[in-house]
Amino acid sequence: MRRAFFLTFEGIDGCGKSTQAERLKQALTERLFPVTHTFEPGGTMLGRKLRTILVHDELNLSLFSEVLLFAADRRQDIDEIINPALDRGDIVIGERFADSSIAYQGIAGNVGKERVERLMDIVTSGLVPDLTLLLDIDPRVALARKTDLDRIEQRGPFLDVVRRAFLDMATSQPERWVTIDAARSADNVFSDVLKAVLKRLE
Amino acid sequence: MRRAFFLTFEGIDGCGKSTQAERLKQALTERLFPVTHTFEPGGTMLGRKLRTILVHDELNLSLFSEVLLFAADRRQDIDEIINPALDRGDIVIGERFADSSIAYQGIAGNVGKERVERLMDIVTSGLVPDLTLLLDIDPRVALARKTDLDRIEQRGPFLDVVRRAFLDMATSQPERWVTIDAARSADNVFSDVLKAVLKRLE
Repeated sequence: MRRAFFLTFEGIDGCGKSTQAERLKQALTERLFPVTHTFEPGGTMLGRKLRTILVHDELNLSLFSEVLLFAADRRQDIDEIINPALDRGDIVIGERFADSSIAYQGIAGNVGKERVERLMDIVTSGLVPDLTLLLDIDPRVALARKTDLDRIEQRGPFLDVVRRAFLDMATSQPERWVTIDAARSADNVFSDVLKAVLKRLE
Repeated sequence: MRRAFFLTFEGIDGCGKSTQAERLKQALTERLFPVTHTFEPGGTMLGRKLRTILVHDELNLSLFSEVLLFAADRRQDIDEIINPALDRGDIVIGERFADSSIAYQGIAGNVGKERVERLMDIVTSGLVPDLTLLLDIDPRVALARKTDLDRIEQRGPFLDVVRRAFLDMATSQPERWVTIDAARSADNVFSDVLKAVLKRLE
């Protein structure tokens, strides 16, 4: 069942990417597909080190500098995990990829969509997922799953813009993106996820 | 004596960049120029954190990922130090800038000159030094100042290529670069450094 295929999950914080990626990995493995699962930041040892850096508020990181740290992690993820897995003929399941940088720092942040797109094209050497699953959800619903009300009021308006950015990206590239309503139960969401993936693998 | 001016020192490890930058800072300050001195990696707190990451061999960093970490530090240096200083009308003295990435990872490494050039153009938003002083020296002479013979044999051939890359870059942009023979005493080198800088500031 070897079939090099690169699929990514995108969506705002708390939309359920990790849960769905883990379930998809199991379901594909049961169907005898070789699967590699990675995520950003944190799939590589560099990513884990960078996570500890990115939480240090006193660094006063500029948003553009933050994009480049994520980019370093992304390139390491490509060189260490994604490309070797695709070369072996694996299905690669990624949580977040270049689209997250475009949505968060390019569109919702002030770095600029076009600038982040040009940057990501260089950073990824043009590697684009075969399929991207957008887990779409209202930020208030997503954040309520894991945080308190203050944080929701603080982050909500920003994540509204990120959500809108993802939806626009999905609309503009329908051949690559599938948008899934992620406000439902994990079982219902997963049913749609698996259907979309198996349809593309046929 | 306000005059926004961005000058950089480039050259292989051990060529004397720090010594010359420090002396130049003193000499310009004595002439009443406001001066800001920075260096990469390490001029910002992010740069210092990244230094600790870059020495961890077990990360197995790809060269491209390394370029992007340096790029994150460079952008932070621009946003936090260089641009604010130029806006104030300071002379900014930098040790290493985009040219180092082009020479080390682009030309001497395998990331590709053209790719690193395109990347640096995005990362710096097109900021190019007004003057770049290349401290040119044989790697074996430079390394003998600070390391042992084993390390010289190991690094020498690579640094020969980096040296040649810097010399070619200097030759191709004579309006920006000044090449200085750095195998001489620090006093003699500094005499040339100061002369080149004052000539450009007139």
